[in-house]
Parts: sequence; C-alpha cells; structure tokens
Amino acid sequence: MAAFPEIGKIPYEGPQSKNPLAFRHYNADEKVEGKTMRDHLRFSVVYWHTFRGTGSDPFGPGTAVRPWESGSDTVENAQNRARVAFEFIEKLGAPFYAFHDRDVAPEGKTLAESHKNLDAIVKVFKEEQQRTGIKLLWGTANLFSNPRFMHGAATSPNAEVFAYAAGQVKKALEVTHELGGVGYTFWGGREGYQCIWNTDMKRELDHLAKFLHMAVDYAKQIGFKGQFYIEPKPKEPTKHQYDSDAAACLNFLREYGLKDHLKLNLETNHATLAGHTMQHELQVAGAAGALGSIDANTGDMLLGWDTDQFPTDIYLTTQCMYEVLKYGGFTTGGVNFDAKVRRESFEPIDLFYAHIGGMDAFAQGLKIAAAMRADGKLAGIVKERYASWDSGLGAEIEGGKHSLASLEKLMLEKGEAASNRSGRQEMIENLINTYL
Amino acid sequence: MAAFPEIGKIPYEGPQSKNPLAFRHYNADEKVEGKTMRDHLRFSVVYWHTFRGTGSDPFGPGTAVRPWESGSDTVENAQNRARVAFEFIEKLGAPFYAFHDRDVAPEGKTLAESHKNLDAIVKVFKEEQQRTGIKLLWGTANLFSNPRFMHGAATSPNAEVFAYAAGQVKKALEVTHELGGVGYTFWGGREGYQCIWNTDMKRELDHLAKFLHMAVDYAKQIGFKGQFYIEPKPKEPTKHQYDSDAAACLNFLREYGLKDHLKLNLETNHATLAGHTMQHELQVAGAAGALGSIDANTGDMLLGWDTDQFPTDIYLTTQCMYEVLKYGGFTTGGVNFDAKVRRESFEPIDLFYAHIGGMDAFAQGLKIAAAMRADGKLAGIVKERYASWDSGLGAEIEGGKHSLASLEKLMLEKGEAASNRSGRQEMIENLINTYL
Amino acid sequence: MAAFPEIGKIPYEGPQSKNPLAFRHYNADEKVEGKTMRDHLRFSVVYWHTFRGTGSDPFGPGTAVRPWESGSDTVENAQNRARVAFEFIEKLGAPFYAFHDRDVAPEGKTLAESHKNLDAIVKVFKEEQQRTGIKLLWGTANLFSNPRFMHGAATSPNAEVFAYAAGQVKKALEVTHELGGVGYTFWGGREGYQCIWNTDMKRELDHLAKFLHMAVDYAKQIGFKGQFYIEPKPKEPTKHQYDSDAAACLNFLREYGLKDHLKLNLETNHATLAGHTMQHELQVAGAAGALGSIDANTGDMLLGWDTDQFPTDIYLTTQCMYEVLKYGGFTTGGVNFDAKVRRESFEPIDLFYAHIGGMDAFAQGLKIAAAMRADGKLAGIVKERYASWDSGLGAEIEGGKHSLASLEKLMLEKGEAASNRSGRQEMIENLINTYL
Amino acid sequence: MAAFPEIGKIPYEGPQSKNPLAFRHYNADEKVEGKTMRDHLRFSVVYWHTFRGTGSDPFGPGTAVRPWESGSDTVENAQNRARVAFEFIEKLGAPFYAFHDRDVAPEGKTLAESHKNLDAIVKVFKEEQQRTGIKLLWGTANLFSNPRFMHGAATSPNAEVFAYAAGQVKKALEVTHELGGVGYTFWGGREGYQCIWNTDMKRELDHLAKFLHMAVDYAKQIGFKGQFYIEPKPKEPTKHQYDSDAAACLNFLREYGLKDHLKLNLETNHATLAGHTMQHELQVAGAAGALGSIDANTGDMLLGWDTDQFPTDIYLTTQCMYEVLKYGGFTTGGVNFDAKVRRESFEPIDLFYAHIGGMDAFAQGLKIAAAMRADGKLAGIVKERYASWDSGLGAEIEGGKHSLASLEKLMLEKGEAASNRSGRQEMIENLINTYL
Ligand SMILES: [Co+2]
Ligand SMILES: [Co+2]
Ligand SMILES: [Co+2]
Ligand SMILES: [Co+2]
Ligand SMILES: [Co+2]
Ligand SMILES: [Co+2]
Ligand SMILES: [Co+2]
Ligand SMILES: [Co+2]
Repeated sequence: MAAFPEIGKIPYEGPQSKNPLAFRHYNADEKVEGKTMRDHLRFSVVYWHTFRGTGSDPFGPGTAVRPWESGSDTVENAQNRARVAFEFIEKLGAPFYAFHDRDVAPEGKTLAESHKNLDAIVKVFKEEQQRTGIKLLWGTANLFSNPRFMHGAATSPNAEVFAYAAGQVKKALEVTHELGGVGYTFWGGREGYQCIWNTDMKRELDHLAKFLHMAVDYAKQIGFKGQFYIEPKPKEPTKHQYDSDAAACLNFLREYGLKDHLKLNLETNHATLAGHTMQHELQVAGAAGALGSIDANTGDMLLGWDTDQFPTDIYLTTQCMYEVLKYGGFTTGGVNFDAKVRRESFEPIDLFYAHIGGMDAFAQGLKIAAAMRADGKLAGIVKERYASWDSGLGAEIEGGKHSLASLEKLMLEKGEAASNRSGRQEMIENLINTYL
Repeated sequence: MAAFPEIGKIPYEGPQSKNPLAFRHYNADEKVEGKTMRDHLRFSVVYWHTFRGTGSDPFGPGTAVRPWESGSDTVENAQNRARVAFEFIEKLGAPFYAFHDRDVAPEGKTLAESHKNLDAIVKVFKEEQQRTGIKLLWGTANLFSNPRFMHGAATSPNAEVFAYAAGQVKKALEVTHELGGVGYTFWGGREGYQCIWNTDMKRELDHLAKFLHMAVDYAKQIGFKGQFYIEPKPKEPTKHQYDSDAAACLNFLREYGLKDHLKLNLETNHATLAGHTMQHELQVAGAAGALGSIDANTGDMLLGWDTDQFPTDIYLTTQCMYEVLKYGGFTTGGVNFDAKVRRESFEPIDLFYAHIGGMDAFAQGLKIAAAMRADGKLAGIVKERYASWDSGLGAEIEGGKHSLASLEKLMLEKGEAASNRSGRQEMIENLINTYL
Repeated sequence: MAAFPEIGKIPYEGPQSKNPLAFRHYNADEKVEGKTMRDHLRFSVVYWHTFRGTGSDPFGPGTAVRPWESGSDTVENAQNRARVAFEFIEKLGAPFYAFHDRDVAPEGKTLAESHKNLDAIVKVFKEEQQRTGIKLLWGTANLFSNPRFMHGAATSPNAEVFAYAAGQVKKALEVTHELGGVGYTFWGGREGYQCIWNTDMKRELDHLAKFLHMAVDYAKQIGFKGQFYIEPKPKEPTKHQYDSDAAACLNFLREYGLKDHLKLNLETNHATLAGHTMQHELQVAGAAGALGSIDANTGDMLLGWDTDQFPTDIYLTTQCMYEVLKYGGFTTGGVNFDAKVRRESFEPIDLFYAHIGGMDAFAQGLKIAAAMRADGKLAGIVKERYASWDSGLGAEIEGGKHSLASLEKLMLEKGEAASNRSGRQEMIENLINTYL
Repeated sequence: MAAFPEIGKIPYEGPQSKNPLAFRHYNADEKVEGKTMRDHLRFSVVYWHTFRGTGSDPFGPGTAVRPWESGSDTVENAQNRARVAFEFIEKLGAPFYAFHDRDVAPEGKTLAESHKNLDAIVKVFKEEQQRTGIKLLWGTANLFSNPRFMHGAATSPNAEVFAYAAGQVKKALEVTHELGGVGYTFWGGREGYQCIWNTDMKRELDHLAKFLHMAVDYAKQIGFKGQFYIEPKPKEPTKHQYDSDAAACLNFLREYGLKDHLKLNLETNHATLAGHTMQHELQVAGAAGALGSIDANTGDMLLGWDTDQFPTDIYLTTQCMYEVLKYGGFTTGGVNFDAKVRRESFEPIDLFYAHIGGMDAFAQGLKIAAAMRADGKLAGIVKERYASWDSGLGAEIEGGKHSLASLEKLMLEKGEAASNRSGRQEMIENLINTYL
C-alpha cells in the first residue's frame, strides 16, 4: 500500500511550469558540460530528517503527521518506514540516500540487540536498493543521541564509551559496505566540550584521532573502499565542537596523519554558524584537495542555531555548483539534503515540496554556474587580475628566484610598486546577476 | 620637558588603595609561584594605539588631545614622540613595548626614504632603551595602511606589491634585531579577500607561505634569534582574513612547513570575533606547542568589530593566566596591550588609567590562577574525570592495544558502557568564584 | 520520604566557606540598605526547568536522573513531584516559585480534563505553601508546547486556537489568584512568525492586544490584583518573536493602550539574544516605569540560542542589582531563576549547586551594588557629567525656554560650544573593579 | 569640462544586454501597476558616500581616485564637486539626491562661517537642480563627525553642544526648504552611549525629544512641509544607539508625542545589524503607518558592522518592493542608495557600475513584486490562512463579542480547537523562485 498514493513520479516540466509538484529545472537526463544533471548533482535524501524528523523543538513535541508510522518503536515499524522511504525517494527521483544507524533501526537494550535490529533493516534496504536502483551515498553512526554519549563518544572521559562507540562504528561500517555505500561520514556529534574547565582538550583530540585511525584500519581490513568524510560544525550540541570548520578539520587531519584518509563533507548551515560562507569553505577544502561532498541546506543568517532549512536561494546554489565544477565535480560525493521541513509544515506533501524546491534550486545553480564558465568572463577577470604573477617578477618569485634582499634591492631602485587595479567587486556582482 | 609632568612612577599601593593612579594588584617584585609578577606578565605597551591612536572612527576624525604632538608628520616630531613614549612606559613600569615600522616613523616618498626615516627613530629607541631598561617585545611591519596594500601585501595580485612588502619586512627585521627585539609578529593586515569571486585563494596562500619562508631565511642570515609569531584574526579589514583563528593558522603553518618557525600571538578580541573564547584559543595553541604571546584586550561581545578595549574583566584575565601558567608561562612572549582608549577618553591621563586597569586586572588574574593551581581542586576534578583512561581499558586503548573489533567484542559482552559522571559545570563555576 | 535525604537546609557560612552546599554571600536576614537580603532579592525557583527539565536537546533525549519520578505522566506522579519541589525550595531557602500550568499537571484529552488535573496539583501547592511559607511569584500558561499552538496562540491564524488559549489563561489566572500569586507573566511562546510571507503581522498583533485586554478585564472581574508582566525575547522558538525586546514590548503596550496594565519581566539571555545588555534593558524598562521582575540567568555570548544558564558572573549580578536598587527595588517582582542545569549535570545535587551559585552571585552583586551606592563615587561622576544641564543654558532648555532660533543665535555669537570632558570609561571600569 | 567624459547618459538596453554601463531592468518610463518605474522607485544618490567617500577605513587612508578633487578643503573645490555630482546623477538618470550639510560644504571655524560656506554650495545646487530637474529627496545635518559631538548632539551631556546642534539643524532645515526638499532625516549619529555607567539614558532621551519638537516647530514656522524621518540603527558609532530599530523608534515617538510628525527611513544594513530582516522592519513601519523612505543598501551577514554595500540581491529587492507596493508605494520617500563602493573599487567608473547594479536590482525587484501581486497567488495563500477570522468565531472575537469566560465555555464544550493547516513555508519559497 503506497504511503503517497496521490503522488506519482515527479516530472520535469520546464521553467514555465507552475505545478508545485514538478521540476522546473532538474531534468535528470539533460546534459550540462557533457554530463547529465543526475551525474553532476548526485542528489541524496537523508533518512534522519525526512523519515525520523517529528518537528519537535526545545519548546514542544513533534507536529509531523506521518500516517505510515505505527507509533511504536519496533523493528516492524522501522521496516515499513524503510519501504515508505524508498517509495518517497523513488517518486522524487533522487539517486542516493544517507543514514545513521540509529535513525533506521531501534536501539536495543544491548549492543548485540542493536546490531540485530540494524541487520533487519539493512535487509529491507538491500531489497529496496535492488528494486529501485537507489544507492547509498554514505552511512554513519549516531554517536550523540543516547545519554551514554553525553560527554562525547571518541572524546568521552569515559573509556568504555569510546569502546562502545567503536563497536557501533564497526557495525555501521560493515552495513555501509554491505549496502555498497560510496562513503562513510563522521560528524562530530558531541565531540567537543560544554565546559572548558573540566576538559582535557589535547587528550580528547588524541583519542579522536586514534578512533579515526581504527576506522580507517578496519575499512581496509574488510575491503571497504568508500570515501571517509569528516563534517565540520562549530557548535551545537556542544558549546564548541572540535571539528569547528574546514580549517580546524584540516589542521586536525594533518596533525594526526589522517589527511590522506578523510575528505570534508561541508554543510552550508555549519559554514555560516562558523562565520564563513559556504563558498569559502568549499574553496578551503578544494584548495587542500579535500572537497568531498556537501550537505545541502541553508541557515537563517539572523538565527544562531542550525536551522537546516531547504536551500532555495539560487545565489547560494550557484556558488556551490560553481566551486564544485571548478574542482572537477563530485567523484564519491553528492548534494545531500541535510535539511528538514519546518515544524509548521507538518504534512507528508511538504516533504515533496521541500525536496523539489531544493533540487530545482541546485539544478538552476548548476545551469547558471555552467553558463558562467561557458563564456569565461569571470574566469578571465580573475586571470587578468593575477597576470603580474604569470611572467616577469611574479613568475620569478613563484619560481623561487627571490629573497627579501633581492626584492628590497629591486624596490629601493623602483621606489614604489606598480599601480593597483580596481577590484571591480560591484561590476562582478552585477555580472553574476546577468546569468540568473 | 616632561609630557606627563603631573604623573610620577605609578606606585603599588595594595588592594585597599582608592588611588586611580596606583596599582592595587600589580606589584612587580612580588613573587607568584616562585617568579616575580614582572617576569610572569612581561607587560608590553603598543606604540600604535597608545602613541598614534587619535580616536578617529569611520564617523569622525580624531579627538585625542596630545600636547606633545607638533601636528606635522616629520621625523623630528616622531623622535620627540618616541621620547614621550618612553617617559610613559617608564612611569607606568611596563618592561616592554611593541611597534610597527610605520607607526614610529613617517613613511617616505620612496622605500629608501622610509628606511632612512625609520633609522632616525630607531636611534632614539636605542638611546631610550638604554636609558630606561625597557625592551622590545616584538617589532612588525605595517603592510596594510598604505593604499598600495589595498589588495593585500604578500597575497596581493600585484607582484610588485609583494616585492615592496618584502623590502619593508627585511628592514623591519633588521631594526627589530638591532633593538634586541625578543620577537617579530606577522598580523594578517589585508591578507584575505573582500570579494571571493575575484580571488585565487590557493595562489594567494602559496605566496603568503613563500613570503614567510623568505622572512625565516633572512632572520637566520642576519642572526636574528627572536621568535616569529603569526596573529589570528577572522575579519576586518578584509571580509575574510586568511589567518582567521588559531586552527586556521596552524593548518596553514603545517601545510607549508612553517610550524617549527612560527608560534601564535593570540588576541582576545580576535578570538571572540572568530567565535571562540580566548581560553579556547590559548588551549588550541598550547596543545600544539605554539602558544607564543598574547595581545591583551577585550571586545564588546555585542559589537561585531574589533573594539580593542582594555581588559578589566577578572574572569577573562584569570582564564588567560591559568592557561599561560598551565603551558609553562611565557618564554619569549608577554602580555601586550593591543588596546586603545575610547574615542571619548581623549585626555593623556586616560592612557594611564587604561593601562593601570589592564595591568591590575592581569595581575589579579595571575594571583587568582595561582591560587587555583595551589590548592589543585580544579586540576583534581579534571584528573578524576579522565581516570578511566589512566589504567585498564583506557590505558590499553591509549597504548594502541585495541581495534574496532576488539572493542566491539568487549562491548558485545558487556552490553553497555559504564555509567557516566556528572560534568559538574555549575559546581565548577561556583568554585571559580571562590577564588575571586 | 525525602527526595534529598542527604541535604539539609542550605546554611550561610560566609565568604571564607569552601562548602559547595553552603552560601558564601546570601545571608537572608542580613540587611543591605536597611532591608534584608531576602526582601531585596526575592529569589524564585522555576518549576519548568528545575522540576520538568530532562536535559533533552535537539540532538538527544533527557539525561537527568530524578529518582522521585515514576516515569508516567499521571496526576499522582505530578502531585508527588510537587512535594519534592517544595522540599527542594524549602531546603534551598528561596521564598518564591513560578510555574506554567502545563509544567505542573498533565495535559488532559480535553480542556476540561486539563483544568481538573491542574486543580489536583493546585491543591497540593496550597498545602505546601501553607506548610512552608513559600509563595508564588507568578503563574503563567504554557501556550506553545502543544502542537495546537504551532502557529501561535493569541496570534494563531486559527481562531479556535485563540479561543482555546483564552480558556487556558482564564484557568491559569484563577489558580494563580487562588494561590495568592503576586504576579502573572505572558512570555511570547510562539507569538511571532516562522515565515514572514505567510503572515499578517498587523492582524496578529491586533489579536494579541485583544487577548491581553481580555486577561486584564478578567483579572479585574475576579479581583486578582497581582502584577501582569510581559517577557521580551527576540527569537526562538519562532524566527522572530513579536515581543522582541523591551522597546518592542513598550511600543506594543503603548500602541494598544496596555502600558498601565503590564510591566516587563526581563531575562538576561533574552536581552543578549536581542543585542542588548541586561543593564540596557533594565534601564529602558526602568525609565519607562515598567521594570517589573527579572528572569535571572545568563547566556553564552558565543552561542546564538537561549542557553538559560545559571548566572555566576558577578559583573552581571552587580549590574542587575545596581539598576534594581536605582529604580527603587522590587515591589511585586523578584530574582526568578529561569535557568537550567546543563545536560551533563544530570544528578539531583547539581540542582542545588546551580541554585546556590546563582543566589550567591546575586547576593554578592547586591552587596557590591550597595557599596557602590554607599560611597556615591559613580553617581557623583554621572551627576558632574551632566552639570551643564542643571543650571544656566541647560536648565533653560529643559525648562522649555528655547527654540532652534534662540539657540542658533546664541551659538552664532559664541561660535563654538564649550569644551567636552573625557568620558573616563576606563577609569570607571577600574573603579568598578575596586568594589569586587 | 566633464568629469566623466567617456560616459554618456546610461541607456536602458533590456535584459539581454551585456553592456555593464547600461540598464537591463530599469526603464524609467516603463509602467508597472500603472505608474512609471521612475515614479515607483524614486532613486536617490547620496552625496556623502558617492562624492565624499574616500575609501578610508580604520586600517588605512582613502584609496579613491577622484580627478576632479583639488585636494584642498575650499568652497571652490566644494562648488566644483557639486557640479560633478550633478553630472553624475544626470548621466545615471536618478531623479533625486540627498545630503548632509557638512558633506557638501567645508565646516568653518565658527557656526556663522559654516552657514556661509553652506550657502555658497546651496547656490550651486539650486542652479544645478534647475538645469537638470534633479530634486532633493531629503537633507540632514551631520551632528556626529566633529569632535564636539563625541558624546552625542541632542543627547550630549554638554548643553552647549545641544545648542550648537540646534543651530546647525535650523540652518539645514532652511536650506532643505530652499532647495525644495521633499523630506528631512534625523539619523542618530552619536545619540546613544559608549559606556552605560556614565550615562543618564532617561535625561538624554528627554533632550532628544525636545530637540525633535523644536525642529518640528521650526519647520512649521518657516512653512517647510517636507516629511521628517527618523532612521533606525542599533550600534556604530556608539556601542548602543537610542534609535536602535523600527520598534525602538516608534516607542520613542509614541512616548514623546512625536509619532504624527516623523516617519521611518529604513536601511537594510541597519535592520540586519539589529537582528531583523529589512522586510520585517518594513512591515513594522508599515503597520504603524510610519513607512517613509528606504536607504537602499545591503550588509554582509557575516560581518558585524555597517558595510553599506550596493544591493544586488534580487530576493532582497523583491522583498523591499513587495512591501512598498503593499503599503501603497512611496509618497515622499524613495530608494536612496546609502551605499558606498568598496575601498578596492577606487576608480570613478566603479561609482557607475555600483549605482547601475543597485538600480537594476531594484527595478527587477519591482517587476517581480508586481508579478507576484498580479497573479495574487501569495496573497491568496495568506487570505486563506486567516479565513477563520473573517467570519464566525474569529469575526466575533475581532468584533469584541468575547471574553476569556465566553471563550473558555466554548472550548470546554468543544474540548479541542479545530485542526491547524500546514504553514507551507517550503512551497511558498519555491513559489517565489518561480517569479525570478
Ligand atoms: Co550535515
Ligand atoms: Co546542520
Ligand atoms: Co593584536
Ligand atoms: Co584587535
Ligand atoms: Co524567561
Ligand atoms: Co531564556
Ligand atoms: Co542610512
Ligand atoms: Co548604513
């Protein structure tokens, strides 16, 4: 029995369509820069928000109406929900999904029971993947909800919590592997601190690094070749998360010899909470060869918490796709909607509206970015701006032919540097508007 | 002729004093943990704010009344100002000062003329250092005020600007060396971007790294053994500075092989603009072996720009000194007041009030931090909190004896981790209040 | 059977005490400015955080260990909890408490059943108030948790929700009256908007005003003479609350003829989320004759949500009590701890630590504020600063004797205004430190 | 001799144009909702940023290249600059401009001399207005730059500063009147505080109100019928401005009997610094009948100061124009570009790029807003959402036919309110994208 009987496969109807249940821009088979939109965007639906989100917030319980839920936290209900999820993803036309272990199956009274519950769902996932062709973008373990993780998981002052988390990640890696997952993500959860006074930051970071090395080792052991990601976030739930932004993650990965093993999974709302634009974070990751995947959402710039809203701003989606294209496009990663419908959008159909809007905004962003690249005006401005480094003095400096002394000598002779050129920020902002 | 004839050497009068021109806590020769306050705190006065600050802001020109200023930007006026500065620092009783090249001497029409002007002031500095025993904590070059640096210095798209900056740093290093400077600081200036669309971030960072390597090489060449520092700041003047926080700096230093050559000079207001507490930044730097020096000030947590106010909050100064003591105290660094009097505090005597307040707040913070360390209650709480890592399972994990598989096995047997203990944040916050 | 058998009445032991379960500053019978600390501070414990808080957050369920809870949402459990609450408040020595209707009694399936459940608890409250002498600072109705209030209560686009809320407030007013409550508070709940595009702000505000007028009318009808309060908060749970800060509340009260009927209940964390210091909000309210009561807590200035932490910063508590004393002290209001223990402080004893710390911090703030007032230095500085308005030209202007024309004439003659005087901010900040 | 010889009148070339010196959307004579774009948008160029901005910032002096400037602060230079300004505005095709007294003419040594200097420029303005048909949107007095205003103008603790400011405003009103100005604006300048401890907020606000009443009286006396505006801003240059946001201004205006005399001049960057969207502020003003004019710019949501950037985001301009149209369009007000080119955009031509981009973005916003209104979908959603208030119970409540008691009775009978409807935020956000 269908959970969304009134909804068929969401069609592409083109930019003029006024149908709120159709795509205006996302045309999966349409080619952009020689590749289909499907392969460029690699859209992914997240299990946690979309199938486990209730609309609860710190001021009230859930509001979501989800007729397929039995209301009991059983394996049966979880299996049924899994079928509903695949119905949704299939009708939407997203090629991927992502999940945490505890989102998909009930936590048992023991680790063994939790493993068993998870297996029961993975069985359904496999069947549904087979049936629909939908794939797993990445799996992960929820190491933050259960009270045992109140002080962190790998960074807990309680060594047995580290051990428990290790057991949980081992299983999550196994099922991700079993499901053919293309990646595996570590998001910080409660790896950080609430109270700096009671915290041994260095020791906690040592433990976190050890934990990640164990995961890397185990993946090799079982032959899991998916990409590992680390997802930066500056705060929430802890007062300060260790993986606060792209630079903090890279610093940590470099310090502990992990940089070759993990790329970054960047989220817009996390970027802005950390004081950066998403475009900045994408460039930091890209420049370090660590741009892995993106958690596509948006925050409210006037709110100080992670609102995880669906992205509809085409400036934002253009920026994202421009950077993704610049760094060669996604390989293992994709556009994963780590986003949730508002508490007031409590009907099942709102899940469709929300994802359609996000997918369309990203498809439009992709087309705009490709247009910007096609005429090359912006790239030309940048190239011209750095022209002094392409030959002569600049090239000599880049080539290692200068020292403070040789450059001082040069400038003592010249007296003053060559004139600067206008940065043309306003003209560039206008130029971008011409592609919209 | 004295600039501050009505002010003598600022005396220590003890906590009961009501004299606004006396110290209540800073007693230079008093020993704390076996070392004098003077040697613990290593107070430093900054030339730029204290002797070049006018009180101008984006909405109006300067207000400061500085009777010793002739009003003309001549070497003579600059030399006279230098004498006034030493009179001030001596009366205040601070053992150090810090400066930028362009703060102390007028910029000439050519680099050569600027060099010459600088030499004329350095001559006075040497005499005054000799006369008073005051030392140079660190020197630096102003690579951001002159319009030539509008797009950055080492990261300018204009290669000749890089060259000019190199010449300027060479000279600044030489005079810092000549004055026996204990350190040399790089603060980002305009090394960052206003408009990410016109910026090649990777190429700019490559240039910045090359620039710092040149400085390291030149220091070695001239025998300058002072410590190099890099000072994080997230924004202002640019929309985004590359050296945005401690982690971003460390990531950069690691990436470009500079970590052994530079430590961090941390500033409170920069920390909070980046979304971190100063205590956080101190721990990040300390854990990385990169805690160099501090720019002591405070921001206004409700304002979004660098207000550089004098620090008077003893919670803040306690946090600073607790971390400094924890990481072994300053070696080359010190407590450098990168702070300015408010625009409305326009009289010379306000400079005294401001510095006295800052020094007293840090001296009180030092005494409180030492008391906290003396009874060891807080350290005991932390030690106890991580006790599970000191033996048994925790010690085995730290010792590399475990894998995901061995830990899973353990937890499958146990079923659940040992209970957690309360974080006791409220009790700890109360405890800290008992030391005030 | 006692819920806290190991805890007796919290004693006052004086500033030297190291006992974490004793007061160091709060000495209820000690007189300050001729009035006991008890009567100055009028401490109040909130039922919602302290007895209904579980430590859940958006990333995980509750952690709190509360042995007295049966785990079922029954009237019996609620009655038992009420007895525990009074045991706690009595041992703590707070003279007041505050509650929402739905915190204290289970919500029924109908409004009638909810009323009945509430009555069952009010009965226990009356007995316990009688037994202990503890009083009700204010009551209120929870008009935000139940999903029916998802779009607001008085501002809901659903008229029946307005009606339901009216019924709930009627009952809450009655029980507050029955319990001898000194006040009744309206906090915005979800009165605001998530999405400005779907919102008719003007119509919603008209409804809110009507709602408050109905409450004022009904209070008069039943003879409830307690003070009504409105509590500003800028955001959370909605994207934008209508009662965003003191000024917004006053503007609303003035516009709708409600200013004589409601005062403000100010909360520190709400003030800072709105971009103001608590001291600012206290002055805005005080100057408008609307300073009613305070919700004593603190936020984390680097986090963007309402953390509702216990206040321990004595600068903050000094500012609060200085303003409260300046405006004549509390009449109906008090220091109400709208604060919660951290999720990681999950043991019952943490509730004691937290409240003791908050009470001590406020008691210390009261003593410091009184000392500042006793020597009058600060007030003297302010008086002197405005001296030009006390006679001559200033007095003439205040007395209405001038116009633009007469003042222009004066200044055309004088040419320039008299010199300004330094604002002395740094000296004042140092001065405040001398009282700590 | 033309200052911009290479630039002619900026033409409208339509959406397909790639000419950066042409409009793609602003077609002055094109009608939208029956009125020309010219009359809808009433674009205004600000004298201060555009002709007096140098690009200086707290970290360096100006960068702007302005060949027409003689470099001396003379009346002659000011007169020449005025001619340049009108050449620019005319070529741009903006029908209005706005100025501060001290922007346009040099401040003299006495008030009398300043008056005389101003008159010399006003003479040129009159000639140029005549010649070009350009009009004055509003005038104002700069009461914040001169050090005499360091502690405020009308709120200065120095009564003579109040008097001086009064003289200055009198003159500014006279010249605004003489130039046929359609309005006169009060922006707070330094009316606020840096240090709350040394401030008597109530007394300062009393003075501010008196000052505004004097201005209102004088306007009546001289027959000036232009609209007065007050412009909210929360901070900068002071730590806290009194006119912090729309609600704070309205509260002040109501308290002091000024609401009939002043409307609001809203600025986007000020709105966001205060924690509100511009759309929110427009609605607050509109609902209070106080929506006067807008200072069109944008801030950087990740920077905490007033960046005053040119607005190019069409979501923003759509929101602005949707609200302006909703409240009946501008009467006296307009779209005034209180915006400045970036320090790095230092060439004269950047002034054209910047204004063209802003005008086009607003013209596009106007067309989008009109399209949204034309099909009425959004308005229909809102109307439907509040339908329960249009008849039956809702209409009875609005009509004053209910009390808490009557509503309780109703709900005791019904037991529960009627179901809510989804807020449809995501669908609405998608809908808006269809108009872009
Ligand atoms: Co995410
Ligand atoms: Co998120
Ligand atoms: Co600094
Ligand atoms: Co700073
Ligand atoms: Co509250
Ligand atoms: Co709160
Ligand atoms: Co403005
Ligand atoms: Co502005």
